Formats: sequence, structure tokens, C-alpha cells
Amino acid sequence: MTATVSPPSTRLTASVADRSKPFVTEHGDILRQVDLTYETWGTLNSAGDNAVLIIHALTGDSHAAAHDSEDQPGWWEPLVGPGKAIDTDRYFAVCPNNLGSCYGSTGPSTINPETGEAYRLSFPMFTVRDLVAIQARLVEQLGITTLQAVIGGSLGGMQVLEWAAMYPERVRKAIPVATSGRFSAQGIAFNEIQRRVIMLDPAWNDGNYRDDAAPATGLAIARMVGVITYQSDELMATRFGRNPDARYTNWPAFLHRYDVEGYLNYQGDKLARRFDPNSYLYLTRAMDSHDLARGRGSFEDGIRLITAPTLMVGIRSDILFPTYLVREVSEIQQRLGSDGRYVEIDSPNGHDAFLNDVSTLSQSVREFLRE
Amino acid sequence: MTATVSPPSTRLTASVADRSKPFVTEHGDILRQVDLTYETWGTLNSAGDNAVLIIHALTGDSHAAAHDSEDQPGWWEPLVGPGKAIDTDRYFAVCPNNLGSCYGSTGPSTINPETGEAYRLSFPMFTVRDLVAIQARLVEQLGITTLQAVIGGSLGGMQVLEWAAMYPERVRKAIPVATSGRFSAQGIAFNEIQRRVIMLDPAWNDGNYRDDAAPATGLAIARMVGVITYQSDELMATRFGRNPDARYTNWPAFLHRYDVEGYLNYQGDKLARRFDPNSYLYLTRAMDSHDLARGRGSFEDGIRLITAPTLMVGIRSDILFPTYLVREVSEIQQRLGSDGRYVEIDSPNGHDAFLNDVSTLSQSVREFLRE
Repeated sequence: MTATVSPPSTRLTASVADRSKPFVTEHGDILRQVDLTYETWGTLNSAGDNAVLIIHALTGDSHAAAHDSEDQPGWWEPLVGPGKAIDTDRYFAVCPNNLGSCYGSTGPSTINPETGEAYRLSFPMFTVRDLVAIQARLVEQLGITTLQAVIGGSLGGMQVLEWAAMYPERVRKAIPVATSGRFSAQGIAFNEIQRRVIMLDPAWNDGNYRDDAAPATGLAIARMVGVITYQSDELMATRFGRNPDARYTNWPAFLHRYDVEGYLNYQGDKLARRFDPNSYLYLTRAMDSHDLARGRGSFEDGIRLITAPTLMVGIRSDILFPTYLVREVSEIQQRLGSDGRYVEIDSPNGHDAFLNDVSTLSQSVREFLRE
Repeated sequence: MTATVSPPSTRLTASVADRSKPFVTEHGDILRQVDLTYETWGTLNSAGDNAVLIIHALTGDSHAAAHDSEDQPGWWEPLVGPGKAIDTDRYFAVCPNNLGSCYGSTGPSTINPETGEAYRLSFPMFTVRDLVAIQARLVEQLGITTLQAVIGGSLGGMQVLEWAAMYPERVRKAIPVATSGRFSAQGIAFNEIQRRVIMLDPAWNDGNYRDDAAPATGLAIARMVGVITYQSDELMATRFGRNPDARYTNWPAFLHRYDVEGYLNYQGDKLARRFDPNSYLYLTRAMDSHDLARGRGSFEDGIRLITAPTLMVGIRSDILFPTYLVREVSEIQQRLGSDGRYVEIDSPNGHDAFLNDVSTLSQSVREFLRE
């Protein structure tokens, strides 16, 4: 997959596992070569303790923000830069591309050095904790001793929570956005449907497609399911209502009769042009794995591992991570005597508000980091 | 499609359109032969004015209730029968199978008498109003002069509203359950995904599959999407949580890792064995068409046509028909000075509560009919 959204010159690559230091996944599989691509903003101080780690969501990449005025805007542009909430005059910000993704980091479409062929489905299954463990190697290699904050939304927010639970000594503050302490049954259900649609596409071919003949339709429909969960009934009612699709007015027809359908199809096709279907399978499975409790006793026991002050950020209209599940983490932290806080983005725009309605988020992050 | 859930002896068939009296759809297409299957309970009085029309939902059939102790239970068994809310000692209850369905009534899998081949995609597109208009012919043929009530849930509830708007002189009371006055953008979005999944299945073959080689996987995945919308986050959390799927314990795997996935796959496969994929395409499009406003001026103008006392029934946890959309109809009726009422089923079980949690419904229907 070759979709590149940032100039190659600002995208760096680190080898974080090799034959001398292989990466063993949570389930015991071994990766003998792992590269992570990443981008940085600002300068690391000599103590290595002014870093902020930014973690992207399911189909994101390392390009959280522009590096200069010539550069394309990043996916958290309003949040990251000189004088912004994540102030790169002060902090050294790092955003890695997730393991298993398709924007430079090692994933299913990478050539397996042992076979000379792309991994495809021979890539090991990995969890949110694996995503974090491999990032920890990058952070160490960069000479970072302390993360002033770890921040991310959705799948990124799951990783923030695991960072705080797995490496409490390295994380000063945690900001998990639009996420929960464990992924819900309904969330798993939506993911499962997305996987099954990709695998229904005959072009998927048990994962052995060529990059130029990928199961684009399957991935597009999977994305359409995702898009519904990233928005809200309220937003769709306002934005689309029952308006006809201007692009397709013939009647009768099964497709593209209403504006909302045209929009969904457009969004689906857009993702299918930029993302690897096998990466989508693996990364949704990683989301499903998210559970602070796993192997740690109770859910409370998992949350107890988090010692950093934690600012959970929920979105009023989020259907993928309903606010009660976001708040739950803060409430348990408070019961345990930890510094757990909750702030809510009062937006009608659903889950995607963590990317699009960032004024409350920006202000809360700024204040939380200044303390 | 041959799935039969009631003994053929209790299922009747009426020819409601033929060459001498063709049926013209809302969009101007012509059907020169339409049969509707239906079932009845109780006895029509000589005035023909003690009838209650029961209308089923998307994948339902005419078997609303058992006819005797030997018979299989129907989909609204607790509601229909001697001494029940729809008291068949008193009322003549009729439940037709919808036009376009696959349980005996004419639909895409029916042989087109003009070609000798199944209609498949040459079947005309139809709307909720067409479903109602063709039922009106059946009601007339049965000698029914007055419907003491029209009742149904979901797509059935949409038809109840149109019955009351299109034939106000024939409908004494309307009970639309878990439905709204116009289908939402989010609802259309979910339907569109379900259609696209069916059409992605190579077995679909542009609608020209043989009944024994239907696109079962596509229909199963479509149903999985539907099932999520018929349940709720709350129900899934309680019922499945993050429990592993006992049927599939191998790791790693993309499928069937969690209980909720096993359940969804089971439900999908179950529907795929009993329903026609083309019928699913047409009937979801009919749902999309639902809008009391269409061709009548404003939404209020559409609702103004309804003169019968109307009991809207919502479900607290319904995500397909959120309560605010159910209540909206009653609120507008009240503003207009009509007899519009609203009752809510306080169930965590989502949309499907209209089939499964019927004690509140049963009591409300009983009282409303007794008035």
C-alpha cells in the first residue's frame, strides 16, 4: 500500500525489532523484524523528559500535524504545534504509525524477510498491548525517559490506557479520548461485521490479493459500517435527513437513492483507495482485544495499575464509545483514590468529534498539561 | 423460497390483482397478477366491522399466532387469541404476508406470468404505501367494512401509519409500534449497507440466482447488521459482554472469538436459510420510502390526514427507532388537536422488544381497544 499523506522527508523510520532482539507478541508469536515509521515535532531536551506521545486511531497515520507552512495539515492539526495545546515549542511530540497498519510500519502487507513474500495472513495476531509494547521500544530508542503525556482517541485512546497501565513509571499524564477501559460487545459486533464483509469480497482471496487487486468493495462497505458508528443519528438527521442523492436520480434503483447513501458510498470508496484490507482485519481485532482487566484480575485491578493523573474525554453523542463507558474509568479511578477526571465534548457529531470538534478537547488538554 | 412456518391449511391466498384489475405502484409500474397470503383468527360479523388488521415487520410472515393447540406459536402469540389483547372471541384478526416478501405473497421470487420466469430484479420497486394499497384490496375482498384497529411494529408500524393516513374512513384505531413518521437517515444508512453486502456476494449474480444457490453469506452478514440495530448496547453488554465464543477457541483467528460474534453469525445464518435475498433488497427499500410527508406538503400535513385515535408505542432502548422519533408523531397529533398518545416499553432489549417484551404493549393495546 502506497498511500502517503505526509512528505517522506518528515516521516522517519526506526527498526525496533530484529533478529538479535525479536518482538514476541502477547500470544507468543515472534516477529524478527519490525520497523515503525513516526513523525516528530519540537525538540527533545537533554534529560529526555519533555516528550508527548500521540497515538492515532484505526486508519490513521503518523501525520498528526504539519511540520511547516508548506506541509499538509495533519489529523490533529488544531492540537499540535507551536503555542497549541500540545505546544511543540515546549514539548517533543512523537506520533508513530501503529504496528499492523499500512503507512510505513510493519504490517500484513510488509515483505516477510524470511520468505521474501508479503506476510498477508501469516502476520501474527496482535493486541492493543502489543501496539504499546512496540511503541515503548521506539520511545526508548529516541532517548525519551519520561512522557509528559500520552494522548490518543478511539483505538489510540485504548493504547493510552494501556501505556499508563503497562509503563506507569514513564507516563506523567494520560489523556484517553473517546475510548473505554474495555471494548464493548456492541463494538466487537460492529467490527466482526466489517471483517466478514471484507472476507466476503471474492478479491480478498483468503488474504492473498495483489495490492493492485485488493478487495476494495469489501473494504468500502466495511468502512460504511464504521462511518455510521463514527457519526450519530442526530448528525445524520441534520446533515442528510431524507434528502435525495443529487448524484443519482434515476428511479427505481437499489443504490444511491438518498443523500446519506451517496455520502456513505463516497466515504467507503475513499478509504478503500488508501487502506490495506488485511491491516483493517488485524487492527479491528486489536481493538476487540482491548480490556484493562485481561490477565490482571478484575477490571478495577487493571485500572489500579494506572498511577498517572488521567483525563478521560467523552463525546455526548458517541455511539461507539457511549459516555457511560468513558466515565466508568474515571469513576473507578476516583473510587480507588486515583486522580481520574472526566470531561465531555458536547457535540452532536458522534465519535468523529474527537477529530473534528476539538475546541473543548484543546482547552482541556492545555489546562491539564499546564498543571 | 419455501420456508413455511405455519401449516399450509391455515394459510389462505387471495388474488388481489389480475389482468382485469392490475395493481399500479406508487411509481407507476404495473403488476398484472398479485396474490397475498394471509391468516385469520376469529369470525367476521355480518356488518363486517369487527376486524383488526395485524401487519408484520421486515422478515415476518402471516403467522401472527397459533390457530389451535396443535399449531406452532406465532410471532405475536401473546397478543393475539381468545381473551388476549387482540381478543379473537370478539375480533376478526387478519394478518397478510407483505407484497414483495417470500412467504406466499407475490414478490421477486414469484414466477412472472408474462415471462414464465421469476421476476427477480424485474419486480417493480414498491413503497410502504403500495404495501398498504394492496392490503386494502384484500380487506375489501374479505368483506371488511371497518377496521377496529390496525396494528404492527417496525415496517409493520410504518404501514399502520399509512393505513390511517390513506384510509381514515376505514380505520377506527391505529397502533404503530416501534416506528416513526418517516424513516431516519441513520436507518436508511443501515439498510443501504445491508443491500450492498447482499449484492457483494458473488452468488447474488445481479439478482439472477437459483433458489438453491442464493447469496446466503451476503444475506447472513446483512442480517448481522440488522440484528445489531434490533438490540442495544445495554442488552449486548449484559447478554454477551466480552465472553469468549465457546464454539470456537482456536487462537489466532479472525472469526468467532467472542460470544457476541458467534451469536451474530448464528442469527445471520438462520435468516439466510429462510429468506429470499432479493425480497430483502426490495423490502428494505420500501422501509426507506416511508415518509408521511411525501406528496402531502409538510410532515404535519401528512400526520393531519390521520383521524383515528393513535397509540404510538416506543421502546426505551430502541436504536433503530429512537423514542424521540416515535413520540414526535404523537406530539404533532396533539398540537394539531388530534387524539395522539404515546406509551413507552421500558425495556433494555432494543427494537426487538416489540416482539419479545410484550407485557406493557399487551396491556396498553387491551385498554386502548376497550375504550
